[in-house]
Amino acid sequence: MTRVRDLSEEQILERIVPLLPRGNATLLGPGDDAAVLAAPDGRFVVSTDVLVEDRHFRTRWSTGYDVGRRAAAQNLADIAAMGARPTALVTSLVVPGDTELDWVTGLATGLADACAPVGAGAVGGDLSGGPCLVVSITVHGDLEGRPPVLRSGARPGDVVAHAGVRGRSAAGLALLEAGLVRTPLSAAPLEVGDGVLLEDAWERLVAAYLRPEPPLAAGITAARAGATSMLDLSDGLLRDAGRIARASGVRLDLDAGAFAADRDALRSAARAVAAATGLGDPGWGPGNADIDGLVGRWVWAGGEDHGLLATFPAGAQLPVGWSAVGRVHAAGEAGVGAAGPAVTIGGALPADQPGWDHFSA
Amino acid sequence: MTRVRDLSEEQILERIVPLLPRGNATLLGPGDDAAVLAAPDGRFVVSTDVLVEDRHFRTRWSTGYDVGRRAAAQNLADIAAMGARPTALVTSLVVPGDTELDWVTGLATGLADACAPVGAGAVGGDLSGGPCLVVSITVHGDLEGRPPVLRSGARPGDVVAHAGVRGRSAAGLALLEAGLVRTPLSAAPLEVGDGVLLEDAWERLVAAYLRPEPPLAAGITAARAGATSMLDLSDGLLRDAGRIARASGVRLDLDAGAFAADRDALRSAARAVAAATGLGDPGWGPGNADIDGLVGRWVWAGGEDHGLLATFPAGAQLPVGWSAVGRVHAAGEAGVGAAGPAVTIGGALPADQPGWDHFSA
Repeated sequence: MTRVRDLSEEQILERIVPLLPRGNATLLGPGDDAAVLAAPDGRFVVSTDVLVEDRHFRTRWSTGYDVGRRAAAQNLADIAAMGARPTALVTSLVVPGDTELDWVTGLATGLADACAPVGAGAVGGDLSGGPCLVVSITVHGDLEGRPPVLRSGARPGDVVAHAGVRGRSAAGLALLEAGLVRTPLSAAPLEVGDGVLLEDAWERLVAAYLRPEPPLAAGITAARAGATSMLDLSDGLLRDAGRIARASGVRLDLDAGAFAADRDALRSAARAVAAATGLGDPGWGPGNADIDGLVGRWVWAGGEDHGLLATFPAGAQLPVGWSAVGRVHAAGEAGVGAAGPAVTIGGALPADQPGWDHFSA
Repeated sequence: MTRVRDLSEEQILERIVPLLPRGNATLLGPGDDAAVLAAPDGRFVVSTDVLVEDRHFRTRWSTGYDVGRRAAAQNLADIAAMGARPTALVTSLVVPGDTELDWVTGLATGLADACAPVGAGAVGGDLSGGPCLVVSITVHGDLEGRPPVLRSGARPGDVVAHAGVRGRSAAGLALLEAGLVRTPLSAAPLEVGDGVLLEDAWERLVAAYLRPEPPLAAGITAARAGATSMLDLSDGLLRDAGRIARASGVRLDLDAGAFAADRDALRSAARAVAAATGLGDPGWGPGNADIDGLVGRWVWAGGEDHGLLATFPAGAQLPVGWSAVGRVHAAGEAGVGAAGPAVTIGGALPADQPGWDHFSA
């Protein structure tokens, strides 16, 4: 078994670089002091995200491949959330010397598999030893002549819409933490019918956590359809919706009914997690209120689903992949005053669901 | 004293973001899912570099400000080495919870001070907790309509030229490791005359390590003057010169005389380091050969000076800030065969000076 400390940085790069996709916008790839990328409309978008071992992933659950997929996906989602097409990413990787080389090459393959469907390249990086695994990715995108879709453009009367999955990543993480699903996952989870949640469906939830698949194309279609605001849901629906609301100076009112199917689909996993973790009355086990609470937390506050939340002008036809989940109101409407809540559910204040913070967590 | 664990990520960003320069090419700065940058000629260059605590810096020597300056400088140098003008950088920062907030705001000020002279912006980032400090920067640049200057363009007959300092960073690190200079440094080191090395001059060497100042403008002037190849010297002169040689399929022959003044200027520091670290004969202390060896290692193999090495067509007038240090020969000349050395000094094989490798070190 080869470990990274047995090789020089150049030897490791010789194994990694051939695994990486060149990308459609790449004019000069890895190997020089910098890469050169095309920016056909004279602008580009850029975002960066870092994953730290034991904080954003655990090696006992995630393979190198999983971490590569996940790190790339959450970065690509930030580009999609601007309404841009991802073009290329660069990666800084910190690896302890006893890391297996296979973990590192797996990460490169995961990056490649996440980039390939959108034609993005992996065009450079840096590699260092260190006390724990750190994967820092910077990603770039092309606005294709469109204005960027900001968080600050939502207007009263707009429709709030969502693309992607909801609550699955948090449910998958809970299943892993409860020891109910073991990794590595089977490569091809079984398809199951609506409402029938088999153990294989639990694997789908875990896969949503380990290898999220953000709806990248939906970001571009939303921009084309005139979305007035948009963001990537990384810290939980309520918390991220609040960011659009505050940036736009409006209130987002979400329709609980629009999330009923998501909650129902997660109840079987929630029952299993509640039983396994001793939630509820010690004599009787978890009750319906406990299950409802858990499912609600996953859907409203669960982070890292990496769906997209956007607002569209009233009457706009939502593009394929988007569903209406609420309405934009003027701030201070609904009798709550100008300093009222940024986000409501059916007009009411949500229960306290702050979402994920990397320092208070 | 405020520590980062006492604040949320958003509260920390509220302290950092106002310290960062907007930059001349920034169309949309921090605060959304991604920043938007201008790329007027329809291309941009991108590079990334990571610094890890206790591997690239030590907090007992480097303040947060120093690390910010250094991290930005070495990234900006990669852009200059392509012949491009740095436009913007993004930063991923991993900080243990007990880090003082002042360290983090100091880092932001250091980034800002490194970016400001070239008009580059600090346009985004990500922040996470973790077991040690990690600073990963991705930097972008504008080629201003010129072709990028690659490592692969050196041709036999070209002049080899250098811009920047030589051996100072390694000498400064050795002074720190020997305990001969304590940090923090005085803000304004005294200017001293040639050949007079006072303790204040040692501080200049240490400053070259803690806060390197790459000759960023020299990268652009070299590109304008028709440089055929160029790179940033981060891993040591001989090792990095070998990269140009191999990429170009040539041999670089360096002129030892061109570095004599650098070696002389470092001898006083080398004597002090040799004496402090017990180099040489236990009874007699270090001899001239020991001093020569130490100074040679600093100049030929010392990393992180972040000067620029380039080749220019024979007869080209070198721009201000560049000095000729050697000549390009066809590979295999000088009777050493086609598989001969990539770099020679005065036609002879250099002593083994491999430079810095992050895994074997």
